[in-house]
Amino acid sequence: MQDLINKIKGTISLSPEAEQYIYTIAKEKVVSKDEILIFQGQSVTKTYYVTQGCLRSFCIDKDGKEHTLQFAIKDWWISDFMAVYSNERASLTVQCITDATVVEFDTKKLNEIYSQFPEFEVFQRKNLERHVVSLHKRILNQLRMTALERYHLFLTQYPDIEQHTPNYHIASYLGITQQSLSRVRAENAKK
Amino acid sequence: MQDLINKIKGTISLSPEAEQYIYTIAKEKVVSKDEILIFQGQSVTKTYYVTQGCLRSFCIDKDGKEHTLQFAIKDWWISDFMAVYSNERASLTVQCITDATVVEFDTKKLNEIYSQFPEFEVFQRKNLERHVVSLHKRILNQLRMTALERYHLFLTQYPDIEQHTPNYHIASYLGITQQSLSRVRAENAKK
Repeated sequence: MQDLINKIKGTISLSPEAEQYIYTIAKEKVVSKDEILIFQGQSVTKTYYVTQGCLRSFCIDKDGKEHTLQFAIKDWWISDFMAVYSNERASLTVQCITDATVVEFDTKKLNEIYSQFPEFEVFQRKNLERHVVSLHKRILNQLRMTALERYHLFLTQYPDIEQHTPNYHIASYLGITQQSLSRVRAENAKK
Repeated sequence: MQDLINKIKGTISLSPEAEQYIYTIAKEKVVSKDEILIFQGQSVTKTYYVTQGCLRSFCIDKDGKEHTLQFAIKDWWISDFMAVYSNERASLTVQCITDATVVEFDTKKLNEIYSQFPEFEVFQRKNLERHVVSLHKRILNQLRMTALERYHLFLTQYPDIEQHTPNYHIASYLGITQQSLSRVRAENAKK
């Protein structure tokens, strides 16, 4: 929790009252590998800040196939933000890939922070701006890069995930089949 | 311009001073089909709000191939936000697909609006939240939908663009070749 408080203090000036408020709406949780924190189809009441370990968000299509939207490691936020920001039911599942520790926020109370402590607007705007940058890059890379280039980039962005996560998670993030991922890894090993 | 002012007033309470400030940092511009507003590789000093017509942002890869990140129609914002939010040079080109009218903002002065009129933080947070939702959906749809499904969705989201834009713009947005787009259109016509 202190990590998060320090991170916030790195962006905005945090009053003791605002810091106290964060403690009342958040709690640290130890979660286990494979634990599901948000279920596709249900309402979304929590947002998570990862302090250790790795989580992922994914959707399951009508054929039962999984598609990974996001991996979240230390210092990343994860939830179903489509549901949170549009007030809809979850179209994603959020699952722990490893044992992890997270700071769990009540999304409704988190949303009330802006009216009570407007200084959080700046913090959240900068978070959202960074997130938009990473999403624009992800979309462009999906359009312009080969599977091998995307796999290399994935290893750079998430150097520790590969050892913890099954092949189909990575394939479903890169938008390729597991067979293609094996081929890409074989190509990569030759270099 | 009045459209944009009304849109802002629909989200936040706008003081006469804040409204006046907007008029000092923005100007309406009539732009022509094929005109380039932002050049890949240059610094980005403008952000555009579209009031009429259609624009697109795209990057050109090392083989000269174009990849379309975004189309922007009435009431959408367009720029190279990766450059604006990260203070980098443009990796995108922003081009008018049709004759259009836009409200042109100086990005630096637009960014100063938050310290002068903090009520804009709420307006921008809600904009960014909606944008994140649309980007998450775009990424998931790219992963889980067939080319035909993505083409259908494109026609729903941008019903008027198809008649104005060459095939390779649409193909480069959908992440398919022009040949695949022709195939998808033929399939679509059969239905």
